[in-house]
Amino acid sequence: MAASTQGQVITCKAAVAWDANKPLVIEDVQVAPPQAGEVRIKILSTALCHTDYYTWSGKDPEGLFPCILGHEAAGIVESVGEGVTDLQPGDHVIPCYQAECKDCKMCKSGKTNLCGKVRAATGVGLMMNDRKSRFSVNGKPIYHFMGTSTFSQYTVVHDVSVAKINPQAPLDKVCLLGCGVSTGLGAVWNTAKVEAGSVVAVFGLGTVGLAVAEGAKSAGASRIIGIDIDSKKFDVAKNFGVTEFVNPKDHDKPIQQVIVDLTDGGVDYSFECIGNVSIMRAALECCHKGWGTSVIVGVAASGQEIATRPFQLVTGRVWKGTAFGGFKSRSQVPWLVEKYMNKEIKVDEYITHNMNLSDINKAFDLLHEGGCLRCVLAMEH
Amino acid sequence: MAASTQGQVITCKAAVAWDANKPLVIEDVQVAPPQAGEVRIKILSTALCHTDYYTWSGKDPEGLFPCILGHEAAGIVESVGEGVTDLQPGDHVIPCYQAECKDCKMCKSGKTNLCGKVRAATGVGLMMNDRKSRFSVNGKPIYHFMGTSTFSQYTVVHDVSVAKINPQAPLDKVCLLGCGVSTGLGAVWNTAKVEAGSVVAVFGLGTVGLAVAEGAKSAGASRIIGIDIDSKKFDVAKNFGVTEFVNPKDHDKPIQQVIVDLTDGGVDYSFECIGNVSIMRAALECCHKGWGTSVIVGVAASGQEIATRPFQLVTGRVWKGTAFGGFKSRSQVPWLVEKYMNKEIKVDEYITHNMNLSDINKAFDLLHEGGCLRCVLAMEH
Ligand SMILES: NC(=O)c1ccc[n+]([C@@H]2O[C@H](COP(=O)([O-])OP(=O)(O)OC[C@H]3O[C@@H](n4cnc5c(N)ncnc54)[C@H](O)[C@@H]3O)[C@@H](O)[C@H]2O)c1
Ligand SMILES: NC(=O)c1ccc[n+]([C@@H]2O[C@H](COP(=O)([O-])OP(=O)(O)OC[C@H]3O[C@@H](n4cnc5c(N)ncnc54)[C@H](O)[C@@H]3O)[C@@H](O)[C@H]2O)c1
Ligand SMILES: [Zn+2]
Ligand SMILES: [Zn+2]
Ligand SMILES: [Zn+2]
Ligand SMILES: [Zn+2]
Repeated sequence: MAASTQGQVITCKAAVAWDANKPLVIEDVQVAPPQAGEVRIKILSTALCHTDYYTWSGKDPEGLFPCILGHEAAGIVESVGEGVTDLQPGDHVIPCYQAECKDCKMCKSGKTNLCGKVRAATGVGLMMNDRKSRFSVNGKPIYHFMGTSTFSQYTVVHDVSVAKINPQAPLDKVCLLGCGVSTGLGAVWNTAKVEAGSVVAVFGLGTVGLAVAEGAKSAGASRIIGIDIDSKKFDVAKNFGVTEFVNPKDHDKPIQQVIVDLTDGGVDYSFECIGNVSIMRAALECCHKGWGTSVIVGVAASGQEIATRPFQLVTGRVWKGTAFGGFKSRSQVPWLVEKYMNKEIKVDEYITHNMNLSDINKAFDLLHEGGCLRCVLAMEH
Repeated sequence: MAASTQGQVITCKAAVAWDANKPLVIEDVQVAPPQAGEVRIKILSTALCHTDYYTWSGKDPEGLFPCILGHEAAGIVESVGEGVTDLQPGDHVIPCYQAECKDCKMCKSGKTNLCGKVRAATGVGLMMNDRKSRFSVNGKPIYHFMGTSTFSQYTVVHDVSVAKINPQAPLDKVCLLGCGVSTGLGAVWNTAKVEAGSVVAVFGLGTVGLAVAEGAKSAGASRIIGIDIDSKKFDVAKNFGVTEFVNPKDHDKPIQQVIVDLTDGGVDYSFECIGNVSIMRAALECCHKGWGTSVIVGVAASGQEIATRPFQLVTGRVWKGTAFGGFKSRSQVPWLVEKYMNKEIKVDEYITHNMNLSDINKAFDLLHEGGCLRCVLAMEH
């Protein structure tokens, strides 16, 4: 497959973010061949996530422009660089923003999914091997983003960031397992380790919050309380396992008090899936004394801080967070794909919109409409 | 034993705190007989702890005066009230500020030591049965404190707050197991669950911090870094397992950065044993990305808040706290006493001073001198 392009620069379409807060522009982009330890992937489907939007908006102080955003995608390996032995052209893959090298201090610890192998390069929009970008437009380099840059028909990623999946899996669905859905499920299964019978509160009923609800349901939670300022979310949330709905706007009391009153002293587990630091506090404080555990999933704006009285922790509450739901990307994303194939987890249900790459600016706008969970773009090859 | 006093009011000596921040006064106090579910204890030894001082100072908004302070003590049961079957006159006991009823939601959860059975009464300085005090001076009621009030030759406590211990144990030593030493050991063993080989940071090397160090050593920690602003603490700290000492005053960098640099990215576990909210933040932030866990043991002044960036938690750090080290008082204090009797844990080494009840104001002053860990008072019966 694609033997003709191997070792060649590929010119293809990509959505380039030339500057913060300016519409993305579909450009003809030159994608250099993969170097040692790299993989070039033909992207077939990509979804949009809030992290793309956040960096695009210019609020991320580490955002670099011009860049190619995108990190929730699926595709097929086009070619591999020197020394890459466990992937080959034709493999179906999900590029993962969280690498897994199986060799660094973090990977070897067995305690975390936060591989540090390529972070120094991906954090500054470059590839490890030569500390350069593989993308350019008329000779001008374009930064990578999160080590994935999936808003392009072809992208180059580090081999430690590629999960090889079942070739039967529909790429226009399982692309969602590259971020939001996996994050929500993992927050419940890996980070909180919710047990059967637990009472759970989910703050924010977007894709991540709904995946938390789904994960909690599959873990046997007895009550799953969904909290959102948009009451329209409840109908769809029921399908993901939410048993009760609370809109903070319907109450005068602080939302943590509302939840404590509803649950005879507080919930066993809470999840913040919004990115709002005062809701992170509420999520902690609505936990039951003695054991309640709160997991921060939402990503707050840069520089913002969480706060609470230390007494909340001294009396037994636990405050945690999660990145990519604690899943080890190369080892576990293929397993999540299998679970989807076996109908043990939902994916299709999060896809509310389908568009083409050329509609990407419209898709960005949709992210802020209540009715949109995930919009999947076809790459128009 | 003491059959003559059973059912009678006992008049004895106690140190009464008539008002915040005023010297305690040794008074002749009337101690009423125990009512249903209560136990009257002849206190033989009591130590002083910072919580006594904090309430005495008037900074505790829940402090009630006049009261009888004290909560780290040991004694012998004088008489028991109606329905008390598992204790009898002559039993050697440690009164515990944290009850364990084995029957409430908290106790039954199996997840916490924070029994809620008598808290509504002890929190307001009274006994459950009639919502009154058992102490009076010339007919004027004196509030209880923490459900223990051990600065008295006799005290009345709820039966669910009494740990029956080995009668061979020296009461003038094991009294320390009623608070500080148990708290530090339990923070390591129960709350953090430190594993062999771990790198540990202990902020504050008073009794609680030293007990944390001792607990970490017994758990097999490979490095135990003690942090204190008083460099004199290091010599004694070595005996409790501290392997390295850092004085924040010797560094220009924030203390969390100093510790991160010393430990190739941060510690596995940290413990705040001071009660200072900015050190609580430092203790969290010096933890290793991916798994580092910080336990708040110190009690901050009322109204103060802890803060950090949520990114600290999203990247895998865990923030916890502990009360009485997570030990279930009636079940586990006797076990701690056995460990002491078998020389598996230190207790004597924390006692730097011995005095008499009548010297209690001098003992309070000592609490703020660097050289004092615990001062044990004999009750001068
Ligand atoms: N930790 C990770 O690895 C990780 C991975 C993916 C996404 N995220 C983050 O998770 C968060 C959620 O992502 P998403 O895609 O589900 O977002 P989303 O915007 O689709 O969902 C957010 C929901 O929160 C609701 N909301 C907003 N303000 C609220 C408030 N004050 N109280 C209650 N509800 C409120 C909105 O109505 C919406 O339904 C984002 O911050 C995203 O950046 C984190
Ligand atoms: N959570 C619980 O159940 C529980 C139980 C007992 C005690 N406590 C609390 O634990 C804390 C410690 O108790 P203790 O008896 O060991 O107290 P202590 O005063 O003997 O020890 C505190 C130590 O901290 C050091 N220190 C003070 N400020 C510092 C700073 N900024 N940086 C570094 N070191 C500093 C002091 O020099 C001292 O050595 C207190 O807050 C107490 O109320 C909590
Ligand atoms: Zn994402
Ligand atoms: Zn790694
Ligand atoms: Zn104490
Ligand atoms: Zn109880």
